[in-house]
Amino acid sequence: MTSNTHKVAEVREVLAEYGIEVYQAKAPKVEIQSTDLREVAVSAAIIAYSVLKTPLIVEDAGLFIRALNGFPGPYSSYVYSTIGISGVLKLLEGVKDRYAEFVSVIAYADEDGVRVFEGRVKGTITREPRGNRGFGFDPIFMPIGLDKTFAEMSIHEKNRYSHRGMAARKLGEWLSKEKLYK
Amino acid sequence: MTSNTHKVAEVREVLAEYGIEVYQAKAPKVEIQSTDLREVAVSAAIIAYSVLKTPLIVEDAGLFIRALNGFPGPYSSYVYSTIGISGVLKLLEGVKDRYAEFVSVIAYADEDGVRVFEGRVKGTITREPRGNRGFGFDPIFMPIGLDKTFAEMSIHEKNRYSHRGMAARKLGEWLSKEKLYK
Repeated sequence: MTSNTHKVAEVREVLAEYGIEVYQAKAPKVEIQSTDLREVAVSAAIIAYSVLKTPLIVEDAGLFIRALNGFPGPYSSYVYSTIGISGVLKLLEGVKDRYAEFVSVIAYADEDGVRVFEGRVKGTITREPRGNRGFGFDPIFMPIGLDKTFAEMSIHEKNRYSHRGMAARKLGEWLSKEKLYK
Repeated sequence: MTSNTHKVAEVREVLAEYGIEVYQAKAPKVEIQSTDLREVAVSAAIIAYSVLKTPLIVEDAGLFIRALNGFPGPYSSYVYSTIGISGVLKLLEGVKDRYAEFVSVIAYADEDGVRVFEGRVKGTITREPRGNRGFGFDPIFMPIGLDKTFAEMSIHEKNRYSHRGMAARKLGEWLSKEKLYK
């Protein structure tokens, strides 16, 4: 559950490989303030399940920049909508350490409880934005070993490398084994 | 309820004028993610009251910088602990509009429900930090009409001008009239 249609498209693409369909719920996502993405996603999933009473996922993600002590981290969406990419690049002006991680946590809730799946990708913050695909900070994040930002990739290619793709695959594997074919 | 001892000292000083004593509760403060401080404080107060069952206040505050679209706003504490004062000043390098507001919301909860009191102070972000009192972004916030930052004031003087002092006085007035002398 998320209001971000990009996220839905990404997770949907991965889970389709497992024969699992994803729909976007119309419920409000109640998020607590925490620097721990797991806490945010788990509590949101519990609250959403108590309302919707149907198996659901909540995804929460963040960009953790080492030189900025993990900023913008769990508040990446808010930071993107206020100071934006240019603000983050300004904060990194003259900073040599460009290391960052994108982390995605997917909390799956059903009548048996809640389970969390995490994906993480290491990379660097580019000097300038590149590409116009994806969303959020994708134009300035380049996974280690590649010469492309997330915003220069198709959904399919981004999912191969991304934090969200990894979390969604873990969920897909688990659902296939534990839930659907039981 | 807050884990910030500076805040407790400030609110305590104001409420003492109304004959009201303030103690710091040892309960976790559950905060939702919202750009609306009132939502954050009210939900935290409701959750805290459901646990503690005693009249309590929750305070939430933020620094809203106009040129940064309200950043850091409700996440001021997280932003302070990651990019800090130097990060905010870097974001404002070369920016002429230095206008900002500090907002404080105090939610009071008891057996009758929850009531909210808000204080707001207009000011500017200085070019450099000044003073070593207060906490958070106090060294770079100068209320309009004064030549002192909050960090250059005693608790008593800061309370005269500050968002939190104003919210606490509103609470004190209301408690005096509505609650204590009934």
